Amino acid sequence: MGDIDANRCVLGVDTGGTKTALAAVDGHGRILFSKTISSPSTDEKMMVKALLDLVDWGISESANKGLDVRGIGVGCAGFILRDEGILAESPHVTWSMVPLKRLVGEHAGLPTFLDNDANVAALGERLAGVCRGVDDFVYIAIGTGIGGAVCIGGEVYTGHRGTAGEMGHTIIEPGGPLCDCGNRGCLEAVAAGTALEREAARFMDEDETSILRKMCGGDRGKLTGEMISEAAEGGDQAALEAFDYVAGYLGLGLVNLIHLFDPEMVVLGGGVSHSGHLLLDKIRDVVKERGIPALVEGATIVLSTLGQDAGLVGSAALAWEGIGRLS
Amino acid sequence: MGDIDANRCVLGVDTGGTKTALAAVDGHGRILFSKTISSPSTDEKMMVKALLDLVDWGISESANKGLDVRGIGVGCAGFILRDEGILAESPHVTWSMVPLKRLVGEHAGLPTFLDNDANVAALGERLAGVCRGVDDFVYIAIGTGIGGAVCIGGEVYTGHRGTAGEMGHTIIEPGGPLCDCGNRGCLEAVAAGTALEREAARFMDEDETSILRKMCGGDRGKLTGEMISEAAEGGDQAALEAFDYVAGYLGLGLVNLIHLFDPEMVVLGGGVSHSGHLLLDKIRDVVKERGIPALVEGATIVLSTLGQDAGLVGSAALAWEGIGRLS
Repeated sequence: MGDIDANRCVLGVDTGGTKTALAAVDGHGRILFSKTISSPSTDEKMMVKALLDLVDWGISESANKGLDVRGIGVGCAGFILRDEGILAESPHVTWSMVPLKRLVGEHAGLPTFLDNDANVAALGERLAGVCRGVDDFVYIAIGTGIGGAVCIGGEVYTGHRGTAGEMGHTIIEPGGPLCDCGNRGCLEAVAAGTALEREAARFMDEDETSILRKMCGGDRGKLTGEMISEAAEGGDQAALEAFDYVAGYLGLGLVNLIHLFDPEMVVLGGGVSHSGHLLLDKIRDVVKERGIPALVEGATIVLSTLGQDAGLVGSAALAWEGIGRLS
Repeated sequence: MGDIDANRCVLGVDTGGTKTALAAVDGHGRILFSKTISSPSTDEKMMVKALLDLVDWGISESANKGLDVRGIGVGCAGFILRDEGILAESPHVTWSMVPLKRLVGEHAGLPTFLDNDANVAALGERLAGVCRGVDDFVYIAIGTGIGGAVCIGGEVYTGHRGTAGEMGHTIIEPGGPLCDCGNRGCLEAVAAGTALEREAARFMDEDETSILRKMCGGDRGKLTGEMISEAAEGGDQAALEAFDYVAGYLGLGLVNLIHLFDPEMVVLGGGVSHSGHLLLDKIRDVVKERGIPALVEGATIVLSTLGQDAGLVGSAALAWEGIGRLS
């Protein structure tokens, strides 16, 4: 990117159930300015209105700063019909079949692109995060649930109908705990935030000395991921065992992903990357122990470096990629 | 393919531990003539010699029939370094790091291509089998073990270093039976021929009336897949339960593959396709029951139609594909 492009940017929008953020991002993935608003409600029309207002603000702010906005990328939690630019379903908001790409694009008069949060986060890590310049990698977002994306040859692999990469709902323990999807033993049911809380409660029940008992006032329903992280940092046995449980299954899940996709890198993102140091050693041990050496030795396992910004930088990466395809 | 190409063919070679076959195959995947020899021994030099002799025979036989041989495709059980054209390791023969592509190519003076047996079988099904014209599919070869290949956009997906698609060694039951690879609960350990025999023996032990007891003379070590198929065809409960066990895990494995790759089709090949009717209903039931409807409803699950010929037609498909890339 030469000097001539120095004033070019795109707007990345990261929209979720509790907040929506916008950033102007340059071609190197650097955030030039940004703004975060609380999502006004779970109502579809209010959400769209707030989003369009934020885009208006971003465009006028860019103009004030002498920036030339080339396009807009929007990343959303939920099930996206990417080619049609439609947000079909979202876990947090009541919107359904919203033609978000067209609504934003027509409103702003700019090329606009839409994809789900995990896919854009993967693109963000590739543009400006831990896997810059890496073409073949698996991105796994571990939060309350597990999402992810597989990058092949530098592009997110979407499959025949656009639903590929659903790693959270691969079955890893057929007789295991119920998953939100109704199935049993999905990776998400044994290796994400909900599992961490469930297992911490179980280990806490077995361990009278656990500090977790105090932290949640004896009410296991009040245990949060933050409490468990804090307790684990302090050396609490029950909390450490809960992390160990989750990391063990993440390790198995990664073995499967590496055996199937043969990536150069596996990136762990999502909320869990804050507690990555509590997981990473065990994950690497399990991959080493249970993977076929010739298959797993080529894949590096790393933590996301974009953290909170993955969604914003990623939506921008989506826009840059889309504009590149158009031109 | 016009009339002008009617006399063009390639030679497909399917080489394994017990036998090696060669066929001349036209551009539509039709076998024009073929020959099968017993693999002379497990010795590497003898194997290469026998293979080159068979290729010589194929070339002179083609000349006799007025056929114009354009290239050679070789499919091998084992771990292949595809770009280098090297057979790195094989489960049945002692050969190691054999530059088979170069050896055959230089000997015959023809463009030669090498890949593993599952990858070529997938190409064969696409050229002339059940998934003709299908670009995105998963091929799973279920024999003594489980191999497979993932076709994306009409090409076998090989991953970053060429080892992708190792579906037999994805972990599906972490505390399950030991696998040949040393791991526990790989798909191969619960859903292939060895598992079928192990489970049939177990069900037979529990069932005094099972005909399997007679068939193997009471010696569970003598149970074969053929016996179990035959007994199941006759309605033997122990044999049927063994098929049910295997089909259950195959169903779970397919859920995972569909959730990850979003294919248009899943093809079941390998030795098990002979007994496909004993597996297919249960597999489809499990996929329907344990898959996410929106994700699995787009994928058709079918049996290979090439059967025994998949390796031959597939090696030929590999050659046609390779020649197409060169020209």
